[in-house]
Amino acid sequence: MPVEKRNPIPVREAIKRVVEQDIETEVQNVPLNKSLGYVLAEDIVATYEIPRFNKSPYDGFALRSEDTVGASGDNRIEFEVIDHIGAGSVSDKTVGPNQAVRIMTGAEVPAGADAVVMLEQTKEGDHTFTIRKTFSHNENVSLKGEETEVGDVVLKKGQRINAGGIAVLATFGYTEVPVRKLPSAAIIATGSELLDVGDELEPGKIRNSNGPMIEGLLNQFGLDGEVYKIQEDDLESSIAVVKQAMETHDMVITTGGVSVGDFDYLPEIYKALDAEVLFNKVQMRPGSVTTVAVAHGKYLFGLSGNPSACYTGFQLFVKTGVLNMMGANEKFPQVVKATLMEDFKKANPFTRFIRSKATLNGMEATVVPSGFNKSGAVVAIAHSNAMVMLPSGTRGFHAGNTVDVILTETDVFEEELLL
Amino acid sequence: MPVEKRNPIPVREAIKRVVEQDIETEVQNVPLNKSLGYVLAEDIVATYEIPRFNKSPYDGFALRSEDTVGASGDNRIEFEVIDHIGAGSVSDKTVGPNQAVRIMTGAEVPAGADAVVMLEQTKEGDHTFTIRKTFSHNENVSLKGEETEVGDVVLKKGQRINAGGIAVLATFGYTEVPVRKLPSAAIIATGSELLDVGDELEPGKIRNSNGPMIEGLLNQFGLDGEVYKIQEDDLESSIAVVKQAMETHDMVITTGGVSVGDFDYLPEIYKALDAEVLFNKVQMRPGSVTTVAVAHGKYLFGLSGNPSACYTGFQLFVKTGVLNMMGANEKFPQVVKATLMEDFKKANPFTRFIRSKATLNGMEATVVPSGFNKSGAVVAIAHSNAMVMLPSGTRGFHAGNTVDVILTETDVFEEELLL
Repeated sequence: MPVEKRNPIPVREAIKRVVEQDIETEVQNVPLNKSLGYVLAEDIVATYEIPRFNKSPYDGFALRSEDTVGASGDNRIEFEVIDHIGAGSVSDKTVGPNQAVRIMTGAEVPAGADAVVMLEQTKEGDHTFTIRKTFSHNENVSLKGEETEVGDVVLKKGQRINAGGIAVLATFGYTEVPVRKLPSAAIIATGSELLDVGDELEPGKIRNSNGPMIEGLLNQFGLDGEVYKIQEDDLESSIAVVKQAMETHDMVITTGGVSVGDFDYLPEIYKALDAEVLFNKVQMRPGSVTTVAVAHGKYLFGLSGNPSACYTGFQLFVKTGVLNMMGANEKFPQVVKATLMEDFKKANPFTRFIRSKATLNGMEATVVPSGFNKSGAVVAIAHSNAMVMLPSGTRGFHAGNTVDVILTETDVFEEELLL
Repeated sequence: MPVEKRNPIPVREAIKRVVEQDIETEVQNVPLNKSLGYVLAEDIVATYEIPRFNKSPYDGFALRSEDTVGASGDNRIEFEVIDHIGAGSVSDKTVGPNQAVRIMTGAEVPAGADAVVMLEQTKEGDHTFTIRKTFSHNENVSLKGEETEVGDVVLKKGQRINAGGIAVLATFGYTEVPVRKLPSAAIIATGSELLDVGDELEPGKIRNSNGPMIEGLLNQFGLDGEVYKIQEDDLESSIAVVKQAMETHDMVITTGGVSVGDFDYLPEIYKALDAEVLFNKVQMRPGSVTTVAVAHGKYLFGLSGNPSACYTGFQLFVKTGVLNMMGANEKFPQVVKATLMEDFKKANPFTRFIRSKATLNGMEATVVPSGFNKSGAVVAIAHSNAMVMLPSGTRGFHAGNTVDVILTETDVFEEELLL
């Protein structure tokens, strides 16, 4: 069998080809408390002001600022308390000269009043209190509309919903949220050398770590993955499984089978599916043989069987593709400059990605490879929160060099209390 | 009723009091594919080498390097192919002089052979091939144990499990993973001014956004929250609900009711529960009245009813407390230096936290407030990925100043393709 010729394309070009696909999941409504991580399918527009009414930000007394003129330590001014309202209640009284309403945090400032005196600023008597300073118009009042006016776009179409987004949606009464469906993913690990996690070891075989890792990456990203039984390197059954997976999922992620050898059937599977191969070789290490194809409006991600290469392909192409399907505005990896803290002497004919641990607690971030670095390495992934990116055409790098870093982890915490 | 006197403590001291509590959830086993986000309760130790055997990283031919000496373009050396193995298979042949075994990526290098020639480096005939360069001992061989030796600690007790951690656990055959239980949380929003999200608006009232936001924050952190019906400001029923919540959950998060006013019952609830109050006032804005207490070995987080203050309290105290309960090594917020991009002229008698958007794509990170900034603001939360922290005792800050930033969001993506 002749060796297939492949044309490696730059990483940037590969990512572009992924997002240029006009593939979007359908719009649906999800309950508010399930909407975290979804991408909004519509702008969310304020239907009323926030705050909705002039509001007290403190527990205290609402009064007329004009009545406080001239108050001082030597000249305490007395007010009569004519009503007493909790948050959520509205006083039916109108505050007149030297009158006040006792008011709780969040309650509406009553008619007539234009300032709030904090409890701590008063000396209380029976149904009266005194103050010793002047208050200005609107002092200690949260004004109607000061945060948001009617018609303001408070959340943008294409924005991923975070906890703060949920709070905004709750404020405007969205019990259901218009979003694009989260893509469902099939995960198919291929390779005759693979055992299930629970299997006893056999000579020449290894346990399948890519399947569980991909499921974990999807979960971390808020998506579910259906894990298919490991596929032996057999063409007919592999085609059947991929076809079936495509019928029930929005994308298919395979690991392994992407090389050019006799037992790597992925190219033939793509042919059988009439898939358009966007690329099958990328100018990157690890994962140069990563393949992305499209068939029947669905992505087929052909990741390497090597864990580090598989992981790299997921970070670069699957995440981007998923965000593209969800209609996200922000879908590209974040890139941060950092100082490399140890030598990395290998030449980089292709762009190199290194699972690393970035530390951001200085004005300049630093980064250090998180362990053994080779395409098949797995432990260093667990210890990484970032990937160093060394551009193609470069040679060795040294401690102290500045390098590009892609952050891959979320919720990073420190061993030390730094604040 | 006299105004309660409270003693505000520094943020750092408050966080310390939270983590000094000896509160840990029990150790349990969870299935591997559900272990994401849990904290390991034991060191994971390598029970065999990775790789387990000398392995081919390429599709090619395994041969004896000594037989390649003298090969060149003018002097191609021929090898006889004596076997053909896929990954997962082991050859029963021993490679002799000028013999080779066709071998797939991931397969074990057969006996006798000590180097692998990539397919691309050969010219193939029938059952033979020729090469034109010399190969060295162990060239293109992934050596047994080069990543991990037997006995190496590959994952540490106290480490949170990420997708890479799952891959490591899969590799070593962990179908079940020893972890500390994820704490379960009860969420109780208090306040007579609160309506449910689906309710029609009423005068003086607002919809409850804190409850859904806290649930979203917990979900984003991998935890479930049980949302209780909104509690009116009524002491007896509030005590009953908190008691019931404590019986079924590892912690109780309340919002509102933490101030010093007549309708704020939280202090009395703590008294009724015989709770130890760790602090009830912190030198921070917003959220100075945030309270954390402990009763019967469980945390009671009393967050402010103001969304921004509620959010800030969650980021600083709930996350830290949850990680403490889970036995995490890294449980403190990450702090990053960044350049403030607009003026912030207010004085800061207390440490100030501002929901902000940090951009990390330069050597120096930058940060800008993400919208209207007041304790009751909600929209700016949705647009933030970080909190600026201005230390107590400082006055105004200007564009160009360097400030501390706590990253709060995960999976940050850019609108532009930067690599």
